[in-house]
Formats: sequence, C-alpha cells, structure tokens
Amino acid sequence: MSIEIVEVSPRDGLQNEKTVLSTADKVELVERAVRSGAKRVEVTSFVNPSRVPQMADADELMAAVPRYDGVRYAGLVMNGRGLDRALKGEVDEVNVVVVATDTFCGRNQGVTTKEACETASSLVAAAREAGKFTTVTIGAAFGCPFEGEVSLDRLGEVLRQVHAAGADEVALADTIGVAVPTDITAKLALAHEIIGDDAVLRLHLHDTRNTAVANAVAAVQSGVFVLDSSIGGAGGCPFAPAATGNVATEDLAYLFARMGQETGIDLEETVAAAVWLEEKLGKKLPSALARAGNFPS
Amino acid sequence: MSIEIVEVSPRDGLQNEKTVLSTADKVELVERAVRSGAKRVEVTSFVNPSRVPQMADADELMAAVPRYDGVRYAGLVMNGRGLDRALKGEVDEVNVVVVATDTFCGRNQGVTTKEACETASSLVAAAREAGKFTTVTIGAAFGCPFEGEVSLDRLGEVLRQVHAAGADEVALADTIGVAVPTDITAKLALAHEIIGDDAVLRLHLHDTRNTAVANAVAAVQSGVFVLDSSIGGAGGCPFAPAATGNVATEDLAYLFARMGQETGIDLEETVAAAVWLEEKLGKKLPSALARAGNFPS
Repeated sequence: MSIEIVEVSPRDGLQNEKTVLSTADKVELVERAVRSGAKRVEVTSFVNPSRVPQMADADELMAAVPRYDGVRYAGLVMNGRGLDRALKGEVDEVNVVVVATDTFCGRNQGVTTKEACETASSLVAAAREAGKFTTVTIGAAFGCPFEGEVSLDRLGEVLRQVHAAGADEVALADTIGVAVPTDITAKLALAHEIIGDDAVLRLHLHDTRNTAVANAVAAVQSGVFVLDSSIGGAGGCPFAPAATGNVATEDLAYLFARMGQETGIDLEETVAAAVWLEEKLGKKLPSALARAGNFPS
Repeated sequence: MSIEIVEVSPRDGLQNEKTVLSTADKVELVERAVRSGAKRVEVTSFVNPSRVPQMADADELMAAVPRYDGVRYAGLVMNGRGLDRALKGEVDEVNVVVVATDTFCGRNQGVTTKEACETASSLVAAAREAGKFTTVTIGAAFGCPFEGEVSLDRLGEVLRQVHAAGADEVALADTIGVAVPTDITAKLALAHEIIGDDAVLRLHLHDTRNTAVANAVAAVQSGVFVLDSSIGGAGGCPFAPAATGNVATEDLAYLFARMGQETGIDLEETVAAAVWLEEKLGKKLPSALARAGNFPS
C-alpha cells in the first residue's frame, strides 16, 4: 500500500510564523510542493485574518495557485463564512476542524467540542453538496495543552459525533506533539472501530517531542496510509514556542523510501524547497534531511 | 522487560565537540548522568590524544569520577595500549570498537575490519581475564560514509568474527544515523541468529536523519533492550557536520515512559543536565524534550 502525503506547509507550516510571506511566495511554495510530488496540498485556511494574519490572503492565494491534473488543493474552514470563501476559491477539498477538548476548542474557535461537531456536520453536508471532498480533523486528539490527557473515552465520543457528520476522511491530529507509538496504535484502532470503512483515516503529526517519525511508522503498521507533513518541518506549536513543528516531508520521504514504501515524494526536490523556505522565513527549519543529506548520497 | 540506557554523553557526546570541557566538568556530567538514573555510563575513550583532544584527560577523569554502588563505568579502547590505560583506570566495562567497513575502519583505527576483529579478540580475552565486563561495538553497521550500504552479508561476516571474540555484549552502531526501522529489524535478527544467547545485544543510535526514536521502538520490538543515548542528544557526526547527534536520553525517557516501558531515567533530571551541558558547550543541543518539556507538564 503506498503512502499518501498531504503537504501542509502552506497552511499549518506558516500559520504561526511571524514572517508573513507574500502571496507570490506562497504560490511558489505550493508549486514547489507539487514539483516535489505532493498530490494533495493544504493551501490555506479561511479564518479570521485578525486572528491569523498569515492567512489573510487566503482568497487571493486560492485564485493565484496554478492548477495541475491529479493535484488537489484543500482549504481549512471552521464556520459557514470560511466555507463560503473556500467554495468561492474553488478548493478541491474542504478540511473542517474540531478540537477534542472543550477548553482548546473554545480558544481555537469559540465553541465547545460538541458545538464544533454540529457545525462540522452542516459544513460537511454543504461542502459535499457542492461536490467537494471533505475531511474532518480532530485537533488535540492525543493531548491538550490546557486539559492534559485526552482519554480513549473522550476521543470515542468525539469520533462518534464526527462519524455522524459523514465526511469522506477523518484525521486525528497530534497538534502539540505528545503522542508515542502506543498512543497512535490505540487511538487509530478506536477510530477504525468507530468509523469502519465509512471514511478514510488520516494522521497529522507534530515532531515536538521527537516522536513523529516513530508515530508515522506506527500509523502505517495500523493501516493508516494518509499522513500530513510539512516541507522543512515548518510549523511551530504556539504552546511550545521553542519546539520543532510538523513532521518534515523530507524526513518521511527518507524514512519510507528506505523502508520500501512508496510516497511519490522526491527527496531532493523537497530538500531544495526546505532550503528555499528557510531563506524566505529567515530561519533554520527542523528538517533533519536538509541538514544531513540523503544516504547513500 | 525494562530498558537499560547506556549514557554515552561523556564519550561519544563530547568527542567531536571543539569546546574541550575541563575534567571537573566531565566529572559533573558523569555525576549528573548517575543522578538522572543511568546505571551504565561510558565515561571516556582511551585513544590517542593527538587524534581526539577531548579525550586527552581519560586517565585523570577515570581517577576522579566518584563510584556508586550499582553504577558501572565503561571505557572505549581500540588497542592494547588503550586497554592497559582502561584497566589502570579501573573501568568496570571495556568497550572495544571495530568498524564494519574496511575504509572507515582504516580511517578510524588504521587497520582493516578483519584486523580490528583479531585485535578485539585479544582485547576481550585480556579484559575478561582482568574480570571486566566486555562489549564489542560494530561501528557503521547500518551504513558507511565512504562505502555506502553495509549489506547483511558483510555485517554477517563481521558478526561471526565478533562472536568468536567472546564478549559479554555485542553492540551494533548506526554511527552516521542512516538506519530506518526495517534495517534495525533485519540486522538485529541477523545478530540474534549469529550471537544467539552467547552475548547481550545493544544498539547505538544517532538521530542524524530523525529516525533514531523509531529505531529504538523497532529495537525493543526486536527484543533488544540495551540502548545507548546521550544527554541533550550531544554528539555530532563528523561526516554530517550540521546534523544532530546521538539520540537524546531525555527523548528516549519520554518515549518509553509514555509507552509504559521502564528505563529508570528521570526526565526532569536529564533535561536539567542537558540544559547544563548546553551552557558548558555554549550551544543548543538537539534534544526535543529540553525544548518542549514533558507532557502532561
């Protein structure tokens, strides 16, 4: 089974960066992601620009990105206004976010988890009506910076509500990077149990505590083959300011290539994109492969 | 089965550092390692000071480190002169190194792999005669910076020679950090096949390409429970100057604690030691846990 990488650097990779990239640079980032082999790119989020200044050009960006056969662009939304913008921007995929704990969900989108799930339900219905592929991402599925552990019981409750929303895909996000492989195995098993074959499962990993690559291996061993990653490992965690970000696309590309698992990602192109992105952001990114190079070189 | 961490920061963690620590600082590093829970510490290597200036004080250091019940100190040796110094220094363990490829072995110790194995044989015999616990470490077991891939056939040859040396423990080292979990599984299975129950197996991991934590998980799944690690992830790789070093002790401590596997390592003490070591070396170390903190905090 080949692995499907969802490139999230233009969205999650950038959203916490203080350096705001120009729309032209974001277009180049998307183009570089596509050139590196990504077939799905999360291009932007349609959220309140006053809360996420980096995403203020979401509409312009979606209008500007060139389209390629076989490449799908996703936009993240949290409410009806965001969905309207995403549909107007002709995204191919709509990614709706809910957060597994009430405290974090409140801080992220001003509602409880249950309310976010109800909103997700109507957003998914409307997006599907518009012919879009839909994902619901459950943020903080492995742990919350405010409430701590997220139990299997709690995640099960959320998964049942998300399942009822009827999306094509359900993603579990380790938003603050706390999971270890046993967490991945247990929570993906729970998700499989609740979702069955009604939706594809996808995993969003952060490398905050150096466990993301091990977690990616555990995901594949659990039969989950859709993984988010970010060129260069861009994407900080606002709750661990000094920590590393999303797992780096090139680190997963190296891992899986050497494990004999197809990702379709070209390592050299991705490393080149990471180096380019470091220049644009004016800082080193956590990517290991950009530091160390391929082997054998 | 609990996991045994061999703390290698005083030796592999420091040996490539340009900043030479004082003997007093190295004593403190060893003390901090012990306080963090390490029962085995690789304190130094008895090698030519003109080639490894950081290790020039090996004799003084071994004389200065306080001894604790239940804690064993190891010294690395490559030849008879090194062994004499190690025995004079009253090490508890002698770690003899051979390198899996002739080119790297030549650069490291001026002999072929076969010659190094013959030397290892006599060093192990002499060290055992002196009542010491003995390890033979096979460097570059997963890949060589000069020769590239190290095949199962090649490693098998080396393992058979090392097996004949009769050490208490055999370590496979991913010296340049290229292995992925499938490599770990395959090469540890080979080692089990050749070594059987005649020696304990140990694994030495570098996080050069962000795979070390996944490899540690694979090791435990393969029934190997003795792992080298380094406070802060100290320890560069001379063949990938910008890359990260040994896998960080605190990163493994977090991983295994959360996976329900006992290591005996105290995370907070180890992070404190990493922060102290960063100050002494005047640079950030790659440790993820020192950046991000424990979870739940």
